[in-house]
Order: sequence, then C-alpha cells, then structure tokens
Amino acid sequence: MLKEFQRINRRKVYQGAIIDFCKDDIITPKGKQVEWDYLEHKGAAAVLPVLDDGKIILVRQWRNAIDRFALEIPAGGKDGIDEPTKECAARELEEETGYRSDNIEFLQSIVPAIAYSGEVIDVYVAKNLKKTEQSLDPDEEIELEIYPIEELVEMVLKNEINDSKTAAAIMTYYYKYCHK
Amino acid sequence: MLKEFQRINRRKVYQGAIIDFCKDDIITPKGKQVEWDYLEHKGAAAVLPVLDDGKIILVRQWRNAIDRFALEIPAGGKDGIDEPTKECAARELEEETGYRSDNIEFLQSIVPAIAYSGEVIDVYVAKNLKKTEQSLDPDEEIELEIYPIEELVEMVLKNEINDSKTAAAIMTYYYKYCHK
Repeated sequence: MLKEFQRINRRKVYQGAIIDFCKDDIITPKGKQVEWDYLEHKGAAAVLPVLDDGKIILVRQWRNAIDRFALEIPAGGKDGIDEPTKECAARELEEETGYRSDNIEFLQSIVPAIAYSGEVIDVYVAKNLKKTEQSLDPDEEIELEIYPIEELVEMVLKNEINDSKTAAAIMTYYYKYCHK
Repeated sequence: MLKEFQRINRRKVYQGAIIDFCKDDIITPKGKQVEWDYLEHKGAAAVLPVLDDGKIILVRQWRNAIDRFALEIPAGGKDGIDEPTKECAARELEEETGYRSDNIEFLQSIVPAIAYSGEVIDVYVAKNLKKTEQSLDPDEEIELEIYPIEELVEMVLKNEINDSKTAAAIMTYYYKYCHK
C-alpha cells in the first residue's frame, strides 16, 4: 500500500519572470525529512489548430532552453492564476497564428516536468478556424507551418518533434480523431 | 525568414538539488535586450519496459510537484553529465522495477518544459526482461503496475495519464509497434 509524503514547509528562494524556485521540506513515509526543489508556475494552455481541410497549424520559434528552433503547437502561460485554460488557449491561438475558433475542445492535461515543476498545460483542439490577425509579443518571432496530421505523426516517430506537449498532443489527437 | 536570438550571458542565481536556476541575457532579433529564466538540468532517461507477453510495467509514486500519485514509465536523472542515457535507462529500469534488459532500443527524445528548462529525456523501449532485484533510493516509494498497451492508450485518451514523457511514450510506442 503506497503512502503519501507530507510537505511541512514551502519557501520561495528565488522569484523568476515566469517561474519561482521553492525549497520544500518533506517528510517521507519512513519518517525522514528531506528537502526537494519545486518550481511554481501559474499554468498554461496549448492548442492543436485544425484547418477545414484537416491540416494542422504549428509554430516554429527559437527556444533559448535548447539553443535551437523548435516546432510546437501554439501555447502560452495563463494571464493570471484565474484565467480559464480554455480562454488562454483561444487567446494564444489568435495571438500566435492569427486564427480564431468557436469550436475548442479539451484533449488532455499534460504535466511537463513532474519531478520538479507544478506546471500543468491543458491542451485543446481548435476547429472551424477563421482568419483574423496575428498579434505577437514584441519579443516573439514565430513562423507558421502547416502539415497533414499523418506527416506530423511521422515526424514524432523520426524524433523530429521533441517538445513534450506537442508530441503528446499530435499522437493523442491522431489516435482519437484519425485512427481507423 | 526566422532569425536566431543571441544569448550574451548566463548566470546561476540559485543552485538546487536537481536543477539550477539561471538568468539569461538575450538579444532579440529586433535588437532588444531581455532577461529570461533558464533551468539547468543534467538530463534524464526513461524506459518503457515490455514484458514477454506484451504488457507494460509502469511505476506509481507520489509526486510532490502535483500533490498526488502519478503513473509513469520508469525514469531518472543521469548520474552525471557524461552518463550515456541508454545506461541511465538500463540502471533506472533495474532500480525501479527489478528487471534487467539486454534489448534496449531508442524511442524518442523529449524536451519536457521547452519554455524554461534545458532538460532532455531520452526515452527507450526495453524488451527481453529478466527478473533481478529492485533497489530503490531510501526516499523512493514505488509500486509497479502492469497493463496491456491498449489499456494505457485508453488511459491517455481518458486524461488519466498526465505525465508528459509517459503520455508521449505510450502513444508513440503504440503507433510504432502495435498499430495495424
């Protein structure tokens, strides 16, 4: 029978721009006290945008954390802790791709870095896309790329898509909506 | 044409147990200087263990970052920056599940939190499993659970598996090895 660990204290030791670093004091089921890293994050949403012909819109952008460009589904942090992730997904969809959707459906919740980050990304599928205007942040540089879902599945299998939310979303969407 | 961002400085502002917090000074393609969060992590490996009857071994453990138990593929950080991830995967497989494998094959590389963490998790598939001995860290409490792959795919679709590496690995493995 698995026992819970008990957290007796959490203290913020460094405040970042999008994440805060905390040290947690934990009592293990064996009664030992340990200190673990914890990152506080306000949560995020991502969206797999499906055009009327079934093709998927992805964004390519430079990612400092891995020092290269990456292909991802549109995503972003919640505006505040209370922003519903579905609204966040709709907002990021329009900001990053210049499309609006009145048909946004929940796909899955992803915990990207379960060992140390409290971030949860709620992933949605957006259909019935209508062209509006892209509105990027001043520090964002994004290019749109459009692919058939089958090609994206192959890109995951060939290890060409490594972003965790994007790989999970492509494979889950394919299985749920396109699998015969 | 997408332009690269230029990182002109990285300084460690907080050293954690498994991650270090850095502040990066970045010059955007528009020439503006910005300061971004960056987490340094030595890298990790994960492994999807396949029994001879095709069933998959997962581990259930309490996760402080989300305050609940989670079902995951076995995984862990590299012993040091130079440990090959395939050796790390073999080690974590035996430590967490008590099985050894002489047939470990690369599946995919996952970047869990691309917006702020340099962590890369190399995911492997392990077959031809031989029972040895589990050897958990003193602070680990883990239970093994064994499922047919089809049931795990359903659990991802039902939003019951949220860990990013586990969701991606299950769906990618299913498509690559079990998809007709």
